[in-house]
Amino acid sequence: MQMKLLQDRIRRDGQVEPGNILKVDSFLNHQIDIELMDEIGKEFYRQFKDRGVTKILTIEASGIAIATAAAHCFRCPIVFAKKTKTLNIAGDVYTSRVDSFTHKTTNDIIVSKRFLLPGDRVLIIDDFLANGKAIFGLSDLVHQAGAELVGAGVVIEKGFQDGGKKIREMGIDLHSLAIVDAMDPVTGVVFRPED
Amino acid sequence: MQMKLLQDRIRRDGQVEPGNILKVDSFLNHQIDIELMDEIGKEFYRQFKDRGVTKILTIEASGIAIATAAAHCFRCPIVFAKKTKTLNIAGDVYTSRVDSFTHKTTNDIIVSKRFLLPGDRVLIIDDFLANGKAIFGLSDLVHQAGAELVGAGVVIEKGFQDGGKKIREMGIDLHSLAIVDAMDPVTGVVFRPED
Repeated sequence: MQMKLLQDRIRRDGQVEPGNILKVDSFLNHQIDIELMDEIGKEFYRQFKDRGVTKILTIEASGIAIATAAAHCFRCPIVFAKKTKTLNIAGDVYTSRVDSFTHKTTNDIIVSKRFLLPGDRVLIIDDFLANGKAIFGLSDLVHQAGAELVGAGVVIEKGFQDGGKKIREMGIDLHSLAIVDAMDPVTGVVFRPED
Repeated sequence: MQMKLLQDRIRRDGQVEPGNILKVDSFLNHQIDIELMDEIGKEFYRQFKDRGVTKILTIEASGIAIATAAAHCFRCPIVFAKKTKTLNIAGDVYTSRVDSFTHKTTNDIIVSKRFLLPGDRVLIIDDFLANGKAIFGLSDLVHQAGAELVGAGVVIEKGFQDGGKKIREMGIDLHSLAIVDAMDPVTGVVFRPED
């Protein structure tokens, strides 16, 4: 089930811009609506509360507020992967390479080996899913650590790109709170119908 | 009053490294302890709850979790300033220049003009205060917007650097949850005595 409160908010305050950009910076990733954030955290908790989550993994910067709201329900630590332009080859970090759709850049993402452990049951949280590269990168860090990936929670999935499909085909339990199947600067967004 | 729970945690899990680096990445700015974060949020609320705060302003990335925990108490939106290497001269953002002590870099920080408004009563939140440049930069953005700065809440102040002194001399109501007056890799940290 998608989250109606979020869909309504995207319809009201989201701006579709040319180049398949969905701008939600008035409530999700520049200014952040704390009421919505709390509801998003609760929704991820409802979805994943039975998985024994020991750690929430996200990526800076806009994933952090969402992960914090979720952790408020899960009562487990958050770890955020850091983006770096220069490959950090110090032996104390896991690293993976991520291309950003939005920013047209490539970053290495890193997490200290001290914060992802073999016994961890990790829930990945992020704001957007487009081509899936961020989730693939985070998932790669989890596997490098020998930890278990129990699922991935995404606020907005761009369903017209193939990231969500690929991630589901990999067997990752992906839950997106809103799935945008089409969008247009004039006519707005179309959400995926529920099964 | 400083926050004893935080001081104890810094004593237990903080690592002092050469070059006046206090590493708190196991609970504050890489892995984040949600229990501590909730208490930090409540503490900032106790301190600033009577100021009519309409917006919490922080800076990516590590300020975001702290601001989210605080906003959870204040029930107001968070705005996080973004760091950029290239001066964004589009007319729709406020911008200020910030030197980072930790990273030895200079960034421009930007906030969309849509999210800081003349009527806003802004509380600045950040993880560290050393030379004060981040707070000065954020304060500058607030003033450019014609908004009112009602205070600044910092988790850890390096009291042996002059940022805190300068900010207090500017008349900003600064509240630091822990003030480190001295630190050493062998003997650890010394907190400022309460008045």
